[in-house]
Amino acid sequence: MNLDKHTRSLVDHLAAASDLDSAAAVLNWDQQTYMPPGGITARAEALATLSRLSHEITASNDTARLLDAAGDPEPGSDAEAVVRVARRDHERATKLPSRLVVETSRATTLAEPAWRQARADNDFDSLVPHLQKILDLQRETAEHLGYRDHAYDALLDRYEPGATKSRLEPMFEDLKRGTANVVRAVSTADDRTAPLHGAFDEGKQETFGKSIASAFGYDWGRGRQDRAPHPFCINFGGPGDVRVTTRFDPNRLSPALFATLHEAGHALYEQGVDPAYSRSPLAGGVSLGIHESQSRLWENVVGRSRPFWDHFYPRLRDAFPEAFGGTSPEDFYRAINAASPSEIRVEADELTYNLHVVLRFELEVALVEGSLAVTDLPDAWNAKMEEHLGITPKDNARGVLQDDHWAIGFFGYFPTYTLGNVLSVQLFEAALKGHPEIPTEMERGEFATLLTWLRENVHRHGKKHDPEALVENATGRPPDTAPYLRYLEEKFGELYDL
Amino acid sequence: MNLDKHTRSLVDHLAAASDLDSAAAVLNWDQQTYMPPGGITARAEALATLSRLSHEITASNDTARLLDAAGDPEPGSDAEAVVRVARRDHERATKLPSRLVVETSRATTLAEPAWRQARADNDFDSLVPHLQKILDLQRETAEHLGYRDHAYDALLDRYEPGATKSRLEPMFEDLKRGTANVVRAVSTADDRTAPLHGAFDEGKQETFGKSIASAFGYDWGRGRQDRAPHPFCINFGGPGDVRVTTRFDPNRLSPALFATLHEAGHALYEQGVDPAYSRSPLAGGVSLGIHESQSRLWENVVGRSRPFWDHFYPRLRDAFPEAFGGTSPEDFYRAINAASPSEIRVEADELTYNLHVVLRFELEVALVEGSLAVTDLPDAWNAKMEEHLGITPKDNARGVLQDDHWAIGFFGYFPTYTLGNVLSVQLFEAALKGHPEIPTEMERGEFATLLTWLRENVHRHGKKHDPEALVENATGRPPDTAPYLRYLEEKFGELYDL
Repeated sequence: MNLDKHTRSLVDHLAAASDLDSAAAVLNWDQQTYMPPGGITARAEALATLSRLSHEITASNDTARLLDAAGDPEPGSDAEAVVRVARRDHERATKLPSRLVVETSRATTLAEPAWRQARADNDFDSLVPHLQKILDLQRETAEHLGYRDHAYDALLDRYEPGATKSRLEPMFEDLKRGTANVVRAVSTADDRTAPLHGAFDEGKQETFGKSIASAFGYDWGRGRQDRAPHPFCINFGGPGDVRVTTRFDPNRLSPALFATLHEAGHALYEQGVDPAYSRSPLAGGVSLGIHESQSRLWENVVGRSRPFWDHFYPRLRDAFPEAFGGTSPEDFYRAINAASPSEIRVEADELTYNLHVVLRFELEVALVEGSLAVTDLPDAWNAKMEEHLGITPKDNARGVLQDDHWAIGFFGYFPTYTLGNVLSVQLFEAALKGHPEIPTEMERGEFATLLTWLRENVHRHGKKHDPEALVENATGRPPDTAPYLRYLEEKFGELYDL
Repeated sequence: MNLDKHTRSLVDHLAAASDLDSAAAVLNWDQQTYMPPGGITARAEALATLSRLSHEITASNDTARLLDAAGDPEPGSDAEAVVRVARRDHERATKLPSRLVVETSRATTLAEPAWRQARADNDFDSLVPHLQKILDLQRETAEHLGYRDHAYDALLDRYEPGATKSRLEPMFEDLKRGTANVVRAVSTADDRTAPLHGAFDEGKQETFGKSIASAFGYDWGRGRQDRAPHPFCINFGGPGDVRVTTRFDPNRLSPALFATLHEAGHALYEQGVDPAYSRSPLAGGVSLGIHESQSRLWENVVGRSRPFWDHFYPRLRDAFPEAFGGTSPEDFYRAINAASPSEIRVEADELTYNLHVVLRFELEVALVEGSLAVTDLPDAWNAKMEEHLGITPKDNARGVLQDDHWAIGFFGYFPTYTLGNVLSVQLFEAALKGHPEIPTEMERGEFATLLTWLRENVHRHGKKHDPEALVENATGRPPDTAPYLRYLEEKFGELYDL
């Protein structure tokens, strides 16, 4: 980065907060992968202290003084972006009392294993005290952060700077209306997923998934894959250590395979950020919506496409000859794109996925505004499942307990999944317009042109541009749901002869 | 802990430093087990920041003020121990400039992978710049800490409070003189280790090693075992998460087996510290000498004894029927106790092990006082090997590069291994005196009486008593080399018909 003396001082000062956050990320990763149960008490305290110290540095008078000294650097420069992001972080931090930061960290760390246990035991009641405490802390956080229209906006803005409830609602309405006919049509279609059920050796699943991540361009010298109850991607202070996790089902191919592609998409973003931004306010992906646009692009737009499987299906057959010996490429393609209302969000098809998000968005808005009680969540969940998807989950483990987001305090996070879906298609189409050879390369198992375009237009910028500006720079237009709706209509219209 | 208000405030204040140290331990563990190569730059910065902030808290005026307020609590109380240890830590921290702490952390983090590479490549020269920098930082550290007789004492005292070079020398002399005849005798004996060479499946080695650790009493709900280039034990802020690592040789049983017993011994100590001491100055083992007394007790005094193998040898034979079908229990016992000068410290027999330590002690004293240059280390190493053990290592990888201690700044650490050997026998004899049934229990694969005695007399106290006081309380006598010398003479006299 080409920074003036004052902005450099600001960056150097804030690097300690970045280091503390990186350390916390390592502790989080460990908690979800390898930590023995006995480690949780000390882990909660260690993470609370790391959060507190990072918060204190960000909110400190020293930071305020250095921000003042940095002034208003030239628009478009790295310095300007540093000051803009650092000022936003600082202002947000000054609004939150240290005590609230510590309590939130401790409560969410302790709730994560409680959620795991509750899901394993199908026991929602055991999670209620945790959820209640975390909801209270989130509501208090929203009041401290402040908002214009709705408390939910304050929480959402942490993940998607500039997003609000009232701007999301029309997007969700468009998607619901725009896909209603197709969803109705597929709901009555026969099940096409039989080829994906069978016996799938875990080691072979892992090897095959990794081979795709490698083909995408994931650099194993700067990452690794481990197992965790919930797949995630995490990075430790720069593009040099960006890890993913997944989980395997020995009887179903899809969950681990598409989770691997999905997390690889997140990881390619983080591995592609300009290394010069490491330990600065510009390090890392700019928002969760943009992040999800990358994961969904590789998982769905690429990973559930015909050109992609033209190359990889013969290889999949070689890895699992018994399972796929009798399945034609077309039947396989139809199986991985089978659309039908289902219980689990992360395993949902592209068409019904957003309905899972709408459900969560509506419920968390109600929780935050106080119109829904934590104890009423299971009933409300099941009612919303009926309303949006026309099914009722078998039990709470496959219903309200399936995601860990609320237990770990991620209120306002879910809508970014749908934002990501929308943007994944808008970005892919822009790449395609510049490089019409991309599908032909995909048929050869090559992704360099696509990755290079994403690196150039999305990844390398880190947090330099705000999400909307990034999309506009990359595609020439502001974020828009139309391309995504068109994509869904065409894809599923063709698949289901509509 | 039963603490007055002032001491409680002191403990609460210092808990943040303890949290930072716990976080650093997780980062260290990860670096040595799972971190991809690309992670090292960010990791060095994160660890440097954690070190700096922990150091700042320990050295702070707030700590000084709280120490003053705590005054001099009643002798023998927890409060008195807290104030004594916290004062020592504070005084040591105030002597070290923050810059030196940061530079040392960064340099040692970066040197660890460099050491790994240098050993793999048998390339000492590539490590020289790292070693030189770290030696300079260690010498500077010694000058800041201060000492009466020798700079080395300042470094040693970090690991073994109260120990000095001039107090170690007679111990080493006693051991050299006391074992010279036996060492000379075994040097000409035939090799007895043939039964330990063969094909040993890694998974089976792991399962067998873990079964012994379980029998000792290691609690897997509060720990785990991973693989690392150098076996170690580490804990994260209390007895709830105490992990070990090991490494496997598919052609030799001993390295992983005895490393597992050794690290389990360390881990039993940390798992046994009073949980009330967690996040306080009294958390964790009191010194490396006492720590090593525990690891060597389980590895050698227990793990290379006849009663132990009466129980475990039939089980080992079941696990590796091809390797041990034709080996009598007595031949196996003689194989694992075969004594002979050899290249690698961690694989040395009980008799010659201390000669490896003497060599390192003499070399690191010379490095610290400036009478030996880093570039001359390989020659000096080989000369000392000739002098003390009568052999010359095959290459530097099996010579001066075998240990990572100097690369990671652990000057003054090696002598604690021999202290541990000495104390392991003194403590075991005290346990035996109180509980003569211990060997009979060992023949049944039971260790509860021994572990309970160690928990009661050593483990639970954490840092409450200084090392010498701990030994005196536990055995009724100050530390003494005589029992250890007697043990070696008897054991190897019998084994080698001397």
